[in-house]
Amino acid sequence: MKRLIQTILWWLLVLLVLAALAGAGWAAVTLFHYEQLDDETHLAAKREYLKALPDLTSRRPPNIVLILFDDLGYGDLGSFGSEAIATPHIDRLAQQGARLTSYYSPAPNCTPSRAAMLTGRYAPRTGLTMIVFPNRSPLTVAVKLGGQNIRLPAEEITIADVLGASGYATGMAGKWHLGNHSPSLPNDMGFDEYLGVLYSNDMEPLALYKNGEEVAPDPVDQGALTHHYTSFGVDFIQRNRAKPFFLYVAHSFPHIPLHPSPEQAGRSKGGRYGDVVEDLDHSVGEIVAAIDRLGLGDDTLIFVTSDNGPWYQGSAGRVRGRKNHIFEGGMRVPAIARWSGKVEAASEIDEMMMGIDLLPTVFDLLNVPPPPDRYIDGKSALGLLVGGEKSGHEELFYFAAADLMAVRTRRYKYRQPFHVPIGAPYGVYSFAWPKGPWLFDLSRDPDESYDISELEPEVMAAMEERMTRKLLEMDRNPRGWVGK
Amino acid sequence: MKRLIQTILWWLLVLLVLAALAGAGWAAVTLFHYEQLDDETHLAAKREYLKALPDLTSRRPPNIVLILFDDLGYGDLGSFGSEAIATPHIDRLAQQGARLTSYYSPAPNCTPSRAAMLTGRYAPRTGLTMIVFPNRSPLTVAVKLGGQNIRLPAEEITIADVLGASGYATGMAGKWHLGNHSPSLPNDMGFDEYLGVLYSNDMEPLALYKNGEEVAPDPVDQGALTHHYTSFGVDFIQRNRAKPFFLYVAHSFPHIPLHPSPEQAGRSKGGRYGDVVEDLDHSVGEIVAAIDRLGLGDDTLIFVTSDNGPWYQGSAGRVRGRKNHIFEGGMRVPAIARWSGKVEAASEIDEMMMGIDLLPTVFDLLNVPPPPDRYIDGKSALGLLVGGEKSGHEELFYFAAADLMAVRTRRYKYRQPFHVPIGAPYGVYSFAWPKGPWLFDLSRDPDESYDISELEPEVMAAMEERMTRKLLEMDRNPRGWVGK
Repeated sequence: MKRLIQTILWWLLVLLVLAALAGAGWAAVTLFHYEQLDDETHLAAKREYLKALPDLTSRRPPNIVLILFDDLGYGDLGSFGSEAIATPHIDRLAQQGARLTSYYSPAPNCTPSRAAMLTGRYAPRTGLTMIVFPNRSPLTVAVKLGGQNIRLPAEEITIADVLGASGYATGMAGKWHLGNHSPSLPNDMGFDEYLGVLYSNDMEPLALYKNGEEVAPDPVDQGALTHHYTSFGVDFIQRNRAKPFFLYVAHSFPHIPLHPSPEQAGRSKGGRYGDVVEDLDHSVGEIVAAIDRLGLGDDTLIFVTSDNGPWYQGSAGRVRGRKNHIFEGGMRVPAIARWSGKVEAASEIDEMMMGIDLLPTVFDLLNVPPPPDRYIDGKSALGLLVGGEKSGHEELFYFAAADLMAVRTRRYKYRQPFHVPIGAPYGVYSFAWPKGPWLFDLSRDPDESYDISELEPEVMAAMEERMTRKLLEMDRNPRGWVGK
Repeated sequence: MKRLIQTILWWLLVLLVLAALAGAGWAAVTLFHYEQLDDETHLAAKREYLKALPDLTSRRPPNIVLILFDDLGYGDLGSFGSEAIATPHIDRLAQQGARLTSYYSPAPNCTPSRAAMLTGRYAPRTGLTMIVFPNRSPLTVAVKLGGQNIRLPAEEITIADVLGASGYATGMAGKWHLGNHSPSLPNDMGFDEYLGVLYSNDMEPLALYKNGEEVAPDPVDQGALTHHYTSFGVDFIQRNRAKPFFLYVAHSFPHIPLHPSPEQAGRSKGGRYGDVVEDLDHSVGEIVAAIDRLGLGDDTLIFVTSDNGPWYQGSAGRVRGRKNHIFEGGMRVPAIARWSGKVEAASEIDEMMMGIDLLPTVFDLLNVPPPPDRYIDGKSALGLLVGGEKSGHEELFYFAAADLMAVRTRRYKYRQPFHVPIGAPYGVYSFAWPKGPWLFDLSRDPDESYDISELEPEVMAAMEERMTRKLLEMDRNPRGWVGK
């Protein structure tokens, strides 16, 4: 009897709290349904910058193929240690090129990672620090309530913008996740052609779009998505073989729910997760085969990586943490670069690199100047990839949502314990690990187990100074406009 | 301005929720401040059973020394792969005995792990599935509200009860964490002598007790705790060398806060965490030296392990998860057994064993019957330790709080996703990983990354049957009384 009363009271309490939260959410919807505005000044500056870029078509700069997996972990590929999943095509690519073992996604989750990768700037520069949800979702309101953007601001400059303005054919297949309406759709942000879905595959409505047009309604057949993206990619390469091209394939998997293709289902020793990863492996095989068949191997830089660490399933290998963590497992992801004759075959590059380096690498490849009106946080990785040079980064910063949470140098990593407000009135990552601050020696302690801040007070002070400097800079000029 | 309003509204919402929770907590305190009752029938049965045990003093059964660390992870010892922490004494012990690489604590946190280890029964048998907090703590009310016990029921039979009744001198040093008042104190539960603290070292008030008497008031000097426990242990061994003895040293570290001894502070390459572990290593060295100095090595089974996986710091090595998780990292802990001439030196035993096996091993060692009125869930590990035999377990169950969450066999592990109510009206572990159920092949996938439930439907069905059988048994007879 007593237990019954306890149970009833317990559930009443739970209902009370839920009701209070729902009420507050409703009030928030009513109060904060505002539209996101773009920055006209920098939009004009963007147009001017892109217009001034030279047409490089005749100089035949290298094609770029960027393949991004969704939530694939540091330990999920054969070439990165997996024993359960077979990835022979990706492993062969690694044999023909370089494995990047200290490559980082710019954020531990989808939207900010993509926003940062495409713009060369840490995600808070774009205001896209939270996940983009479908428009009607109450979560969209929560993001707005946090003062964050819900689509890539039109004034941001993407890799596709720069390459397109330089004469490249630009095509994208797959998951966008940087906004669901103009002026923030793929075709608005530099891509001539687009086939894909606008959200993660666990969001609804999930329809397949070709440019602006819906070609398969919600719910799409998810088991066919990898195939659709691959076909688009192969076709795009064939159609554009005579000119420089940029192909961005942003796969929807192994993000959950896991939908393998009918041919692959039930074949991997890694279960359904393994099946979708093996689907991705086949996809990489087909795209690489298309490039090699056309004799474009020497003219094409292929870069394969992931947007963040593994979520519920998947392996981060020997490093600590997973998606949404700023431990290494949240952001250290597999990366493979192949550019025949340029990137040394079968090499391992342990230099620090992050997704924000791709745009600066493009500037370097094309020998064009960066836009003058904004900070680009990344550094060119060209020397690192083709010249055996050291990383251009002395330090890499780890942002989670709008919070600056950690910094690493070649040897050490400093981890902030508490909420560090930049723009947002809350810090979703602040409460998860309320201990620290911590200093790790990554050379001896790869899984971030032992805080040595007391043992190395000078290193600690220097790391704190790096954090403080970046915090102040981000606080003063979060969007990173030059001259502000 | 808009941002300011947003911020104010956000904090108002937070305050509202906190106020609602506080009010509900207060109501709960008022409603549920009842005293825990013991079971008189089984208390009488316990007394009868213990009284009937033969005095084995003259037969000179082996001494038993059980050393338990608090929150030490699977990867924190040199002999278990740590590169940052030096544990030469423990590593030498491993060289002289066996490393148990598939040993499990019976629960992923302190109180239930200890309750189960000392009684040979899964923690829900004892009703001690939550952490014991100081009496005045609102958390104590929360535990009561969940229908759980706040001290080890007097009718439970511990290893110390059995050994004491068989003629052993029984002594305990360290953290008890199974209740803070009679009849559930160490001296009530079979220990002739006790020196230690009643809670985890992050709880207050934390005083040092010698038997019933407070010998150092709150706050104790935590940097001296390991030394106090060690001195007690060495002294206890010396005083009782002429008769069989059972020494249980339950260290307070590396549970946080981390307080190294003054001699050790700042010396470990593993930082402050490494310092307290190296303190523990010295302690093990001193206790083993005392045994060997007295020529008792052949007559003493030494068993060293941990109560659960690592918490904020510490390493779980290659396995997934940490303290409070039912992934392997929460419960697979280092274990080392030495019994000179009996346990093969420098051996590795990969057979399944769990803390609940210690009491059955004691029955086996002494050749005495188990108590007839209750289930003992553990199996004797004697054959496994000294005879090269297989594990007595075909399956091991993983309980988190009052929830049955997982089962493993030699090769596979099944993981329950949702709340499985046994007794308690809530499941604190239910919401953390709301995916699954999952089946892992531990032989190929040691870090539990890939669900293969669809690939192996027959294995899955068999594992689900194991879970269902145990669930029904626990639901019908949670306390495990024979004949109920």
